[in-house]
Amino acid sequence: MQIHRYEHPLNEKVRIYLRLEHLLKQLHDSNDLSDPWQYTIFFNALFDLLELIEQIPVKTDLAKALDKQSTKLKAWLDYDGVDPTAIQSLLDNMSHAQKNLLAAPRLGQSLREDRFLSSIRQRFSIPGGTCSFDLPALHFWRQLPLEDRQQTTQAWLDQLAEVDEALKLWLHLVRQSAQYQPQSAHNGFFQNDASLSCLLRIEIDASYGVYPVVSGHRSHFSIRFSPYEEGSTVASNIDFKLAIC
Amino acid sequence: MQIHRYEHPLNEKVRIYLRLEHLLKQLHDSNDLSDPWQYTIFFNALFDLLELIEQIPVKTDLAKALDKQSTKLKAWLDYDGVDPTAIQSLLDNMSHAQKNLLAAPRLGQSLREDRFLSSIRQRFSIPGGTCSFDLPALHFWRQLPLEDRQQTTQAWLDQLAEVDEALKLWLHLVRQSAQYQPQSAHNGFFQNDASLSCLLRIEIDASYGVYPVVSGHRSHFSIRFSPYEEGSTVASNIDFKLAIC
Repeated sequence: MQIHRYEHPLNEKVRIYLRLEHLLKQLHDSNDLSDPWQYTIFFNALFDLLELIEQIPVKTDLAKALDKQSTKLKAWLDYDGVDPTAIQSLLDNMSHAQKNLLAAPRLGQSLREDRFLSSIRQRFSIPGGTCSFDLPALHFWRQLPLEDRQQTTQAWLDQLAEVDEALKLWLHLVRQSAQYQPQSAHNGFFQNDASLSCLLRIEIDASYGVYPVVSGHRSHFSIRFSPYEEGSTVASNIDFKLAIC
Repeated sequence: MQIHRYEHPLNEKVRIYLRLEHLLKQLHDSNDLSDPWQYTIFFNALFDLLELIEQIPVKTDLAKALDKQSTKLKAWLDYDGVDPTAIQSLLDNMSHAQKNLLAAPRLGQSLREDRFLSSIRQRFSIPGGTCSFDLPALHFWRQLPLEDRQQTTQAWLDQLAEVDEALKLWLHLVRQSAQYQPQSAHNGFFQNDASLSCLLRIEIDASYGVYPVVSGHRSHFSIRFSPYEEGSTVASNIDFKLAIC
């Protein structure tokens, strides 16, 4: 039995946070430039990330979001049967991440001001625009010793360390905030309320041959399971697991 | 001594051909999906390529270009000291490539009409737009067995086989049409005539720490060597090799 996992944000901020997480993963995984084309993954992800963080004030929003999670977590300290040491350790991590985040320079500013990055950024959106005649400076960089290139990609990635740490922690807490519950979709459709929630997590057996298409807002969401193979039918009853975080 | 190689097209068609070659290389190299993020290289290159081939009638242009090269090549048969068997074999290859190209269906049409590809194409230009909630169908595909995925990427790539073959052959002939000649740039600058040429090829010793920025038209071109490191000076005399193809 192979399980497919999907997530769906229920508001715009979480949508951006999940996209940032997706891009940061790509940056970390392509950072070593072990494959000759990995630089395209790295730079595409970096430039996408720079565009995203111009859309919302990620730093202050994320600091506030961590604050809100801290308040929720502190409430747990009053419950019996809860390990106060574990919670306190998590609270310390959050306070640490929040402090680092707020103390960090303006997010992405030095990346935006980097002479090399800004000289190549624009051409990356041109189809096939990374040839040696389009970006001779990039072509020069690509021929530097691997170690030198790894140093530059690492230095760029270091600039995002604080937001990476805070984002990981916040998403971890949100994901842990709800348990998966068994659910059933009839004729490929499921709907429910989601007041005060911000993230849906779905686990579904791959053998159904479907993927979920979610429409969701803060208060209400619906899931339609769509067949991957064109023209194939959707099982009248689909058992899946859902966590409303 | 490490040699850096650069190429610069002297007209719009060659500019597109070089970009197509660059994208086809990316497609072939990422086709086996051996790395978890290689699918981003593959799809980005594929969608860039589809956009490029909408800009000029690549199929007919390339067939004509091969025809022109055949005529040039046939003229060589009259010269003494030329191996007619080698030339005839090349002419046969060209005629074969041209016939295949013209017999192929409308370039990229089935790729543009592919249900899966067209469903994911648009989101690829959104920053970070390939998350599971953006493209659940892609997320499903990514979790298919590697062999199944390789079969689909290979089938997509097969649709480009004729243009790939013709392009490789034409660029090979153009690149072979001129020898590298030693040249010198004074104060980082070099200019020359390039009547009837379509491609510049430059070889330069990496230790100069410079890359070439070319401005070129069909009749005339100039090369300015720019320092890679900000603020560093350019040698008053730069020896390099140049082929005007």
